[in-house]
Amino acid sequence: MANREIPYKIYLEESELPKQWYNVRADMKNKPAPLLNPATFKPMTAEELEPVFCKELVKQELDDTDPWIDIPEEIVNFYKMYRPSPLVRAYCLEKKLGTPAKIYYKFEGNNTSGSHKLNSAIAQAYYAKKQGLKGVTTETGAGQWGTALSMACAYFDLDCKVYMVKVSYEQKPFRREVMRTYGATVTPSPSDTTEVGRKILAEHPGTSGSLGCAISEAVEAATSQEGYRYVLGSVLNQVLLHQTVIGLETKTAMEKYGIKPDVIIGCAGGGSNLGGLISPFAGEKLRGEADYQIIAVEPASCPSFTRGKFAYDFCDTGKICPLAKMYTLGSGFIPSANHAGGLRYHGMSSILSQLYHDGLMEARAVEQTAVFQAAEQFARVEGILPAPESSHAIRVAIDEALKCKETGEEKTILFGLTGTGYFDMTAYEKYNNGEMTDYIPTDADLETGFAGLPRVPEQM
Amino acid sequence: MANREIPYKIYLEESELPKQWYNVRADMKNKPAPLLNPATFKPMTAEELEPVFCKELVKQELDDTDPWIDIPEEIVNFYKMYRPSPLVRAYCLEKKLGTPAKIYYKFEGNNTSGSHKLNSAIAQAYYAKKQGLKGVTTETGAGQWGTALSMACAYFDLDCKVYMVKVSYEQKPFRREVMRTYGATVTPSPSDTTEVGRKILAEHPGTSGSLGCAISEAVEAATSQEGYRYVLGSVLNQVLLHQTVIGLETKTAMEKYGIKPDVIIGCAGGGSNLGGLISPFAGEKLRGEADYQIIAVEPASCPSFTRGKFAYDFCDTGKICPLAKMYTLGSGFIPSANHAGGLRYHGMSSILSQLYHDGLMEARAVEQTAVFQAAEQFARVEGILPAPESSHAIRVAIDEALKCKETGEEKTILFGLTGTGYFDMTAYEKYNNGEMTDYIPTDADLETGFAGLPRVPEQM
Repeated sequence: MANREIPYKIYLEESELPKQWYNVRADMKNKPAPLLNPATFKPMTAEELEPVFCKELVKQELDDTDPWIDIPEEIVNFYKMYRPSPLVRAYCLEKKLGTPAKIYYKFEGNNTSGSHKLNSAIAQAYYAKKQGLKGVTTETGAGQWGTALSMACAYFDLDCKVYMVKVSYEQKPFRREVMRTYGATVTPSPSDTTEVGRKILAEHPGTSGSLGCAISEAVEAATSQEGYRYVLGSVLNQVLLHQTVIGLETKTAMEKYGIKPDVIIGCAGGGSNLGGLISPFAGEKLRGEADYQIIAVEPASCPSFTRGKFAYDFCDTGKICPLAKMYTLGSGFIPSANHAGGLRYHGMSSILSQLYHDGLMEARAVEQTAVFQAAEQFARVEGILPAPESSHAIRVAIDEALKCKETGEEKTILFGLTGTGYFDMTAYEKYNNGEMTDYIPTDADLETGFAGLPRVPEQM
Repeated sequence: MANREIPYKIYLEESELPKQWYNVRADMKNKPAPLLNPATFKPMTAEELEPVFCKELVKQELDDTDPWIDIPEEIVNFYKMYRPSPLVRAYCLEKKLGTPAKIYYKFEGNNTSGSHKLNSAIAQAYYAKKQGLKGVTTETGAGQWGTALSMACAYFDLDCKVYMVKVSYEQKPFRREVMRTYGATVTPSPSDTTEVGRKILAEHPGTSGSLGCAISEAVEAATSQEGYRYVLGSVLNQVLLHQTVIGLETKTAMEKYGIKPDVIIGCAGGGSNLGGLISPFAGEKLRGEADYQIIAVEPASCPSFTRGKFAYDFCDTGKICPLAKMYTLGSGFIPSANHAGGLRYHGMSSILSQLYHDGLMEARAVEQTAVFQAAEQFARVEGILPAPESSHAIRVAIDEALKCKETGEEKTILFGLTGTGYFDMTAYEKYNNGEMTDYIPTDADLETGFAGLPRVPEQM
């Protein structure tokens, strides 16, 4: 079929949905470093992780040898409601740019959560249900992950408790109401429902909350109640594993039409989408079967890859979770207040950190006005209103396509379009009004974050 | 292929996209009554309509004999960016209801406008561009139509002026910003940019605007500037014509799998979605080739079909547009303030009005708390967060499926899921908080509206 005409959208048949997730760690010679117990600095054991996470998910978290993990049939059936997602040939964008490059994007926004987050939410909810749990807890900032998890829990009839950063709870009532419509309990954090929340409220009565505080409350809520576990939407190995449906579908769709990408681009916050998209391609690269240029795109205002340290660090600002070895700006790092474009996590998936450290991928930092300019250009010709996060990848895809215009190269560019921007119109409004500004942290700003890195023996 | 297993989602190939729209008027023995000039009560001629509407669209508006109208290639190419839309088998809803009925829905929400409105917006923008116009004007209330038109105009590089009811402009900033992101000028109405706007502002300085006023401003803006025309998102024959892509795709997809619907259900405000979905099926019915039960669903608080009069009436509250013969509550009718569920137009498409009058379809009015209850049930099992408008159809589809559960009938139920509810979370919030109420207008309420019907000779 190599010479078939390429349609605007390549949809796979439901029968072509992946039956297994691909575990890229199995093909990595240098495995991602293990999670460490923050008290002992020893690798976390399954027994230590199981009071917090579901049993089967702990197994997936620690498994770095099995290349393929079966996707349970119940999860495949749920995937069928919104997957396979389309692989789109960006004919209109190519024409607008006047580039000889061929641009493709894998669009993950065609579901109510509006993003790829649902791919892992449904898996995590399934394993919680299978373990006989009553429910799960989590935190959410902007609300994309909380929405996805609420949908997944509604489907399996699981209780879902979301701790939402208070300022988002108040400023993003729409996100909150979507979660409530799916039956989740949404609590503004800090709250008086947990010990840690009450402590923070007593010390800072007027606080508008933080992600670090919401994580602490969600973990306490999970571990202090019978039948609950805590779940997370990015960073962890298990999450990247579930997200490989993105890359596997993309690869199948491309092979069906005889397409091979030269450049693969994805935005990176905690790494769940980028890891999911590139894993099958990185696997080929690791096994020496093919070569691809892989580019992670991050905000210049939160540059974990390009300016961070590869070190053990806390995953949360509350410092209660295990330590992970990753590219990090320090768990105390907070992006500048003018940052509107998402991807504000201080660290990065351990898997991606290791691949980057080993030279298997590169990274670029982009400024937010350039990101929204790309978002607008894309929206006007391709129709889809992209999420600010996804627009980081669009920015670099356009940059690469414009380079091809100069050189005349007919490169095939693939990027991940992770979601839609319906709930990000406040940021678009800033851009539309010409009020958006850029910010690049100074070296001194970064030093403050690095100063908070834990004193793990190996890195002292 | 009649016995192939039915997937969750039936996607057609791009090559199976309709190449022609279907003009149901050609098969109607009783044609819809012509538009009348409000000054002379004589049928509007093409010459009278062309200063307001694009030439080719006027032709389509008046053509009641050609059954098939070619879809220009440029429009087909745009359709390919988001069409064919999926026909979904609601396996999860069926299971939840425990019904032997087979439920299908045609989902039109997978594009940035979030609804079917784009199907006609792109056609109207195309004909404006082809006529060499600079731009188009329109009004928008909640903003769905304005968003679709902005997207279409961005694609064809046409200027787009949207008059948005002031209260929506202020209360729905997200919708407004989506339109601006697509390059539209959005003006809160009434405004000082038109004569009629200035007049209203002088008389009612504190007014929050109305759809009727916004229409008046949009028409004035179109007719007072060189190179502009006015466009409309529903009610008109041309709009229903463009929307038949919905029904044509549905029919092709069903035939591919040997499925024949027994009941076809759609929500009805001005009738664009319902007309588009049912036209090809109604055509078979008109030609005596097949029989289907067709049900229009409307809000009990705005019951044009079930309690309106079949009469000539103004299409706008400003009374400047031609008169149409339709089921109407009177152009002065305004739904009760507690009405949250959309579909608030006082009249109805002339085509659908005639089909209803001739007994080819039936109608049902439903109350809004029951509508949101169905919306929530649907969202939780099928994943998609439906627009309040679409949820009217869901309500009746569920009711019909529950009847089948009682009788044991294995009916095939098809309904139109016109869009998503991301921008309607204020209404969902009311429902989630138990604050939503119902309202059924009294006969006296309706009499007030009927009293404003124009004194057209034929109906005096």
